[in-house]
Amino acid sequence: MDIKAYIYKKALEAKESTRALGRASAVEKNNALLKMAEALKDGSAALLKENAKDIEYAKSKGLSPALIDRLTLTEKRIAEMSAGLLEVAALPDPVGEITRMRQMPNRMLVGKMRVPIGVIGIIYEARPNVTADATGLCLKAGNAVILRGGSEAINSNRAIAEALRSAILRAGIPDAAVTFIDIPEREAVMEMLKLEGIIDLIIPRGGEGLIKAVVENSRIPVLKHYKGVCHVFVDRDADPIMAEEICLNAKVQRPGTCNAMETMLVEEPIAGGFLPGMLKRLEAAGVELRGCPQTLSIYPGINEVKEEDYYKEYLDLILNVRVVADMEEAMGHIAKYGSAHSDAIVTMNHERAMRFLREVDSSAVFVNASTRLNDGGQFGLGAEIGISTDKIHARGPMGLEELTCTKFVVLGSGQLRE
Amino acid sequence: MDIKAYIYKKALEAKESTRALGRASAVEKNNALLKMAEALKDGSAALLKENAKDIEYAKSKGLSPALIDRLTLTEKRIAEMSAGLLEVAALPDPVGEITRMRQMPNRMLVGKMRVPIGVIGIIYEARPNVTADATGLCLKAGNAVILRGGSEAINSNRAIAEALRSAILRAGIPDAAVTFIDIPEREAVMEMLKLEGIIDLIIPRGGEGLIKAVVENSRIPVLKHYKGVCHVFVDRDADPIMAEEICLNAKVQRPGTCNAMETMLVEEPIAGGFLPGMLKRLEAAGVELRGCPQTLSIYPGINEVKEEDYYKEYLDLILNVRVVADMEEAMGHIAKYGSAHSDAIVTMNHERAMRFLREVDSSAVFVNASTRLNDGGQFGLGAEIGISTDKIHARGPMGLEELTCTKFVVLGSGQLRE
Repeated sequence: MDIKAYIYKKALEAKESTRALGRASAVEKNNALLKMAEALKDGSAALLKENAKDIEYAKSKGLSPALIDRLTLTEKRIAEMSAGLLEVAALPDPVGEITRMRQMPNRMLVGKMRVPIGVIGIIYEARPNVTADATGLCLKAGNAVILRGGSEAINSNRAIAEALRSAILRAGIPDAAVTFIDIPEREAVMEMLKLEGIIDLIIPRGGEGLIKAVVENSRIPVLKHYKGVCHVFVDRDADPIMAEEICLNAKVQRPGTCNAMETMLVEEPIAGGFLPGMLKRLEAAGVELRGCPQTLSIYPGINEVKEEDYYKEYLDLILNVRVVADMEEAMGHIAKYGSAHSDAIVTMNHERAMRFLREVDSSAVFVNASTRLNDGGQFGLGAEIGISTDKIHARGPMGLEELTCTKFVVLGSGQLRE
Repeated sequence: MDIKAYIYKKALEAKESTRALGRASAVEKNNALLKMAEALKDGSAALLKENAKDIEYAKSKGLSPALIDRLTLTEKRIAEMSAGLLEVAALPDPVGEITRMRQMPNRMLVGKMRVPIGVIGIIYEARPNVTADATGLCLKAGNAVILRGGSEAINSNRAIAEALRSAILRAGIPDAAVTFIDIPEREAVMEMLKLEGIIDLIIPRGGEGLIKAVVENSRIPVLKHYKGVCHVFVDRDADPIMAEEICLNAKVQRPGTCNAMETMLVEEPIAGGFLPGMLKRLEAAGVELRGCPQTLSIYPGINEVKEEDYYKEYLDLILNVRVVADMEEAMGHIAKYGSAHSDAIVTMNHERAMRFLREVDSSAVFVNASTRLNDGGQFGLGAEIGISTDKIHARGPMGLEELTCTKFVVLGSGQLRE
């Protein structure tokens, strides 16, 4: 098979579908999303059958239980995918909104209209639910989507994509708007990444290795979702009870997520009073502690943190604890070791709260709230396609608006350039 | 010389300067801009001396008069660079603005704060004025800039950059915030393009060849300013006098620019009445016409347009003229042959005006105004760093706001993730 020619043809078909899709009204797109949600629910028996093939193959290859769990579909997971599509249907349509319509000195009106980006390529790993989640968000924002999932889940992904494709076709939208790349070879990804001018944006969903490989090979803009090395800084003027609750929540509520805390920074003047109770609670919750020398002198018996630990995204019940002289040192630590993902200060001091907010350069900066709240749903965006760690185009949780771009619209009455 | 090590060191110094720069107030940044403007004015004799070396070298190499003109500095051009910096100083500071601060159901406030991007690499060709213009805009938006101009202008660029650097240092901002790459070899650019994680954004300024080479080699996001193949569609309900004025302005006011019209589309029902007078005026203005068969039957004696002409950015007094059956055919033509830069409809019909505005996917879409108005100044953005033909991050004229990104800011009172 000529993989290059296949990818080119598929991408071109997706691009051709964008004119019809860009013109579709919110009613038409929502109708497609409802039909897609129904198709998944009605087809769940067939999806489970296809998924069983993937699981069997994964087991025969001795893949890890964690990976097999990620690729496993259940009635409940299919129902969640279906419900997710209904949630996206319920969100307002971002397309067509005109902002900042201003009258210029020559009386022409200039504004920005929100429009679809065009064709979005999603490159993902073993989770079949990405097939439905990403498709729903892209479609609602008026974009065609090209799906290229991991080879481990190819039977599941194909079945989900086929269900979605026939549903949107029944809703009167060209099925090329949801294009599935049915080729397990890595070469398929490489060919996708060359199609500058046809594919407008690539979103890789998966581990750091996948994202790095995509960035190194892509001529198309890539939106990256890198790791989260997140901090909570407990300022000397923190309410100690609030600080305990926030740190506990940031570490243990779901430690395997990118917005969980990896290092707790405590300002020196309150360290002696704050740390013993806090660290006892964290240990009681099963957290392995790694402390700086000053932490150890206050709370002996735990391991000493090594400098390289400060760079780590544990995704686990492990926490670095460091006593810092002041906020300046805390912000220096965050700038040096952090990944600019989610960072919080706990304080009752207004001036330091505002300074932290201004100077810490992360996708979300929190005053007196848990880093775990960095999430599209929590931020009122509705569903999200991920949390961008990029500074170009979108940063932080990416919802429907971040899957669009704008164009300038000008309403004149004969204005010329003088 | 170890070019790789040199570029890495320079880029790291630029990155280190961003914390101080990001913290600088509007007053401090404006003070630096004023000092930079003074430095160029006061140093103009020295700049002209350095520029003379570049001109002499260019002449000795037999470079084209057009290129020599682009790299020539005069008292007037230096005064314009200086005035440009004062204009940027007068613009409002984009950094720190908080938009969309909304209260969530759990009472935390979530908004987006506008912040600098970080380090921006500018890769440009022979125009030394880019050195000052790009630096002023990047600095005002709180970004460090790494300047890599064409080797033909290296003496001029070095002298301008040194004047700017000592000026900002006097204003209390680290001079690494304006970093000049004093290496003519192409390898310097290649090394810059690998520094993902240190340089945040690359903006190439120059011809299509330069931009394509940058895109092919960059691991860093690139904002592109590709060509403009722009159209004016004269609808059957156009005011014929307004249509004549707009088409004339779009073609002849400054034909060498990216937003000048390259193809005029005229709806069939009015072609017979509109074209003879219009084409006579264009010819009187020195425009070479290339017509479709229907145009030729109405206005004989001009050359026939070839299909490949419709793809061309003439940047010259040449115009394609095509009669189309209806607006659908006009929009199909624009989608197929255009470059999604600047496209206009002239009509008094509200419904078709709105449909054109919605469905034509260009960086700026005009109703009853000249495509030549696609410009940061005309759109009320102040100075611009170019007109982006990208759909990611920024599209159309890029002013200060487009040189920033946002971060989410969250003001809580102890909120946790449930």
